[in-house]
Amino acid sequence: MNREFTPLTDNDVSRLQEQARTARTAILTMTTLAASGHPGGSMSSIDFLLGLYNRANVDPKNPRMKDRDRIVVSNGHISPAVYSTLALNGFFDLDAAVTEFRLAGSMFEGHVEPIVPGIEWGTGNLGQGLSAGVGFALVSRLNGIDNHVFVLMGDGEQQKGQIAEARRFAVKYGLTNITAFIDYNQLQIGGDIKHVMPQNIRDGYISDGWDVIEIDGHDFREIDHALEDAMNHDAPVVIIANTIMGKGVSFMENLAKYHGSPINAEQYAQACRELGVEDRLEYYAGRRKECKPTHGTISHTEVTLNEGTPRVYDKKTDNRSAWGNALADIAKANGDNNAPMAVFDCDLQGSVKTGDFENAAPGRFFQGGIMEHNTATIAGAASTCGIQAYFSDFGVFGVDETYNQHRLNDINETNLKLVTTHVGLDVGEDGKTHQCVDYLGVMRNLYHFPVIVPADPNQTDRVIRYISSRYGNFLVPMGRSKLEPVRDRDGNVLFGEDYKFEYGKADKLRDGSRAAIMVMGTPADNAVKAADMLHEGGTDVQVWNISCPCDMDEEALKEAAGTGMLFTVEDHNVHTGLGACVAMKLVDMGLRCRLIRIGVEDYCISGSAEDVYRYAGLDAQTIADKIKDNL
Amino acid sequence: MNREFTPLTDNDVSRLQEQARTARTAILTMTTLAASGHPGGSMSSIDFLLGLYNRANVDPKNPRMKDRDRIVVSNGHISPAVYSTLALNGFFDLDAAVTEFRLAGSMFEGHVEPIVPGIEWGTGNLGQGLSAGVGFALVSRLNGIDNHVFVLMGDGEQQKGQIAEARRFAVKYGLTNITAFIDYNQLQIGGDIKHVMPQNIRDGYISDGWDVIEIDGHDFREIDHALEDAMNHDAPVVIIANTIMGKGVSFMENLAKYHGSPINAEQYAQACRELGVEDRLEYYAGRRKECKPTHGTISHTEVTLNEGTPRVYDKKTDNRSAWGNALADIAKANGDNNAPMAVFDCDLQGSVKTGDFENAAPGRFFQGGIMEHNTATIAGAASTCGIQAYFSDFGVFGVDETYNQHRLNDINETNLKLVTTHVGLDVGEDGKTHQCVDYLGVMRNLYHFPVIVPADPNQTDRVIRYISSRYGNFLVPMGRSKLEPVRDRDGNVLFGEDYKFEYGKADKLRDGSRAAIMVMGTPADNAVKAADMLHEGGTDVQVWNISCPCDMDEEALKEAAGTGMLFTVEDHNVHTGLGACVAMKLVDMGLRCRLIRIGVEDYCISGSAEDVYRYAGLDAQTIADKIKDNL
Repeated sequence: MNREFTPLTDNDVSRLQEQARTARTAILTMTTLAASGHPGGSMSSIDFLLGLYNRANVDPKNPRMKDRDRIVVSNGHISPAVYSTLALNGFFDLDAAVTEFRLAGSMFEGHVEPIVPGIEWGTGNLGQGLSAGVGFALVSRLNGIDNHVFVLMGDGEQQKGQIAEARRFAVKYGLTNITAFIDYNQLQIGGDIKHVMPQNIRDGYISDGWDVIEIDGHDFREIDHALEDAMNHDAPVVIIANTIMGKGVSFMENLAKYHGSPINAEQYAQACRELGVEDRLEYYAGRRKECKPTHGTISHTEVTLNEGTPRVYDKKTDNRSAWGNALADIAKANGDNNAPMAVFDCDLQGSVKTGDFENAAPGRFFQGGIMEHNTATIAGAASTCGIQAYFSDFGVFGVDETYNQHRLNDINETNLKLVTTHVGLDVGEDGKTHQCVDYLGVMRNLYHFPVIVPADPNQTDRVIRYISSRYGNFLVPMGRSKLEPVRDRDGNVLFGEDYKFEYGKADKLRDGSRAAIMVMGTPADNAVKAADMLHEGGTDVQVWNISCPCDMDEEALKEAAGTGMLFTVEDHNVHTGLGACVAMKLVDMGLRCRLIRIGVEDYCISGSAEDVYRYAGLDAQTIADKIKDNL
Repeated sequence: MNREFTPLTDNDVSRLQEQARTARTAILTMTTLAASGHPGGSMSSIDFLLGLYNRANVDPKNPRMKDRDRIVVSNGHISPAVYSTLALNGFFDLDAAVTEFRLAGSMFEGHVEPIVPGIEWGTGNLGQGLSAGVGFALVSRLNGIDNHVFVLMGDGEQQKGQIAEARRFAVKYGLTNITAFIDYNQLQIGGDIKHVMPQNIRDGYISDGWDVIEIDGHDFREIDHALEDAMNHDAPVVIIANTIMGKGVSFMENLAKYHGSPINAEQYAQACRELGVEDRLEYYAGRRKECKPTHGTISHTEVTLNEGTPRVYDKKTDNRSAWGNALADIAKANGDNNAPMAVFDCDLQGSVKTGDFENAAPGRFFQGGIMEHNTATIAGAASTCGIQAYFSDFGVFGVDETYNQHRLNDINETNLKLVTTHVGLDVGEDGKTHQCVDYLGVMRNLYHFPVIVPADPNQTDRVIRYISSRYGNFLVPMGRSKLEPVRDRDGNVLFGEDYKFEYGKADKLRDGSRAAIMVMGTPADNAVKAADMLHEGGTDVQVWNISCPCDMDEEALKEAAGTGMLFTVEDHNVHTGLGACVAMKLVDMGLRCRLIRIGVEDYCISGSAEDVYRYAGLDAQTIADKIKDNL
């Protein structure tokens, strides 16, 4: 949207200057009171923040208003400035923020979190905010929302490579509804940014297709002009604001030490004299001791989709194709190009099978290039705006490379469906750098990102439909190979027409009493075959498919442990995956049973899936032999 | 080093052209034979590779020659071209590579791995190779080795943000001994690079201070001139080589599908006719069936350091300071600025306490800026060149953000000492985005990256000295707070003068028989205090400090489990850390014992370490209460 501003009057400027004085006082009070926090960058960016909120279309009475401008603060450590600005714009009581800053249990945390009204995205790990802003800008365009996204960043932060990725994505998709702001105070923790890591910030943005506006970041009229100007370019704009670290208090100005250190009480008194304000530190110290911390919760726009009609596969099919088919079905069942969903790819569309989705809903498919960090964050941020976001990639890129992006997504309570193919050793001949044998071991460190590992194409179909109808993060990992649908001994497909996926429920694939196998993912059919081989030799072994290792089925485990001998089979690091989950649950439940964990013991070789499985001991024959040897 | 080339003669060019024909034939033969692999980029980059090896100072008889030029192939999928080039330069038999390409058990894997003679760095995850090359170039300069480093990359790969980080680091440290090469065939998996993700590659390099040379990547004289030119600039140089995907076979040229798909036998026959070579596919197919795959191993230059003299702390000290002191001691004990070591920081030197090291050995300290991905890879690559490399960062950056860089480091059998501070909830008031409660849960997915968690400053001191004298990767995580040295009931320091760290050994901090506590890291003193509270109430509880959770002390566990009731205490995700390791080991050893895991149950609040510990139930009183409640 192009916007026209009525120029600031002298009165407007005076009002903003007075706000700035109040805000600077609040910044110093809260950091000195907490004896912790980042006053320096807060004071260099406060004028811009106030100038921005003076124009931004936000409503403190309705902070989640649908067509609000979205302001992302990527350098989350300037929280004192952000809290002050939001308070001065009516989002909450300034005294509460000053009193409770960094106090245990308060929403006014060290780094901004979306539990605070007005905060769109929790940050603190630098370099991710621009991607989040791009995600918001993208969904605004998708949903026809005529708003603008602003992203504040530090100058040291510009060193992070993910920022260049975000720039390119924004340009590719013509996102002119986003404006970035760099608080160019030229200091980072280690000192002068030119000394810590020389960088030509301006040319970097230009080379990626952005327009640059340079201003004095402490001049409200320049700030105001820049904001208006930025919203009327036909490219994304970055405003580089020349500022002064610690601006407003003479003895703090241009000193890197105030990046992350507050001043003491004596200095605070002096600062108050300079600012011409009353020293109320003791008053707030008293309040802080007695206050009941203000809580906050996150509330994103939820959305669920029509699951469409399940498919049943009776022939050998790769889970990837089942995922791609289900995804396209869901798009069709929800209005094709109008479906409230988006799919993100990193130059692997042919392999991760999202082509049919793109055909069904071309405007909802986004090609993020070989820029996984950026894409993971964009997808996460987009998922909070009333769409279901799917990010599909190889396991090593979608999980291992982007773990920290998903950690921040999870902290932000996103609604991301992460579907990774080529997990485990089942990656074709690509070798160890492509073998994601840690998808569960890594992702189960995230508290709200359950992992669902389908056993075959039929279960994949049902799992994808299930996650499409739930809010929240899920990882669905799958291998590359075509898999035989899991069948009973009569040859009937087990996850057939009547099957409905239920989160946390184990699937009994074979009955038996001599021992039990619990298997996860791709090797399910091998485990079944192993059991059938043993059956032919007169030994009946239970086989359980564990699709939800993070939330183990207790009844199934009890029954399996009842055999006295339990084998876990997984195409995953044998120390950190299914076997580890089973061991922990056995102990938690006080079940006694021998456990033999079969899985990937070390970085593995490159070869055909069949050869590699045989090498790693995950083929049916080796599984059967191991069981026989242990009975 | 500046180098002057005698210009290529017509004979030289003819010889190279003939090599190129042989190499192209080999590329097609091996990929068609394996029915897998990446012929397109192999054929676009083969001329440059041959031109480079024609000039590079490498010795096939002594591939690890100390002053060799180092060639890093970041786009590891062009392995067919690399294997062909190395074979034609005498590193091994070409027929072996052709026969065994991507065959299970052969060193000729899908992506290049350093098990192959002549390969410096295993790649396959794009965007990391330039950082590895920068690491090599840096150590060459440190060690006074007059060589040159060449890094080959794809053009799509340029989208990765880590590449811009590497560029900046190289310029900051004036590394003119590195030359990058971009195979600019303008196609990536998804098609035209301008369609997949538009990018101004040339201006990006220039904005970061690199010089650019543009050539026809199929003209040997242009390649040769560019190489000579590049080695005589006073800035790092990138050679952008205009090439043709699939070059040399008419029906393959400029088709993106040949990025990752081989031609079939019929097309192969046609290609042989075009190349004017014999179709020997059947011959190789026969060999492939019968061959015994060629193995390879990695052998890096090892180094160990003099550990210096341990320090004993009798007063409250943060582990961070103990680490910083030990590091500086080691530098001093090994020749200060000549010590065969390097320390890498990401703008957190004051917090991670490497300042004393920098004072002792300023030429061995490297400030990587806020560019963790790049720094993690640089440190890993540097560690393979006869120095001990230390990378120190906050946990969330050094572990969570850079996990995949460490995964590739580990696959490359690096010698990286990763020392992370601010782990667990003990991060000051920075809040959940800074709380690394997954350092063990994440890193134990790597097969050769043991985690050692020191309990107090004394153990930290000994652990740092221990890892300095061992080859291999280690993670040593620690919190932020000052900790009381762990003491016995008489007040004597437990890890005192006589204490020697032994990997895998648990430390008994208190004796008792009613129950046992196993504790990891920062909460050790709280666990001891809890036991002492219980002791005063007449209940004696064993306390074990587990510094090596990945390799549990079996004797200690047996003794602890013998009490019948075991509590694990950790400032870590309660599902994936010490408690999970103990549970798995209990089951593996068939020990029966109740286990109650005390740890971090969810993303936590922001506040002082003490308040946050109390909130999370990790303070001494809550630990004691939980034990009492369960006895």
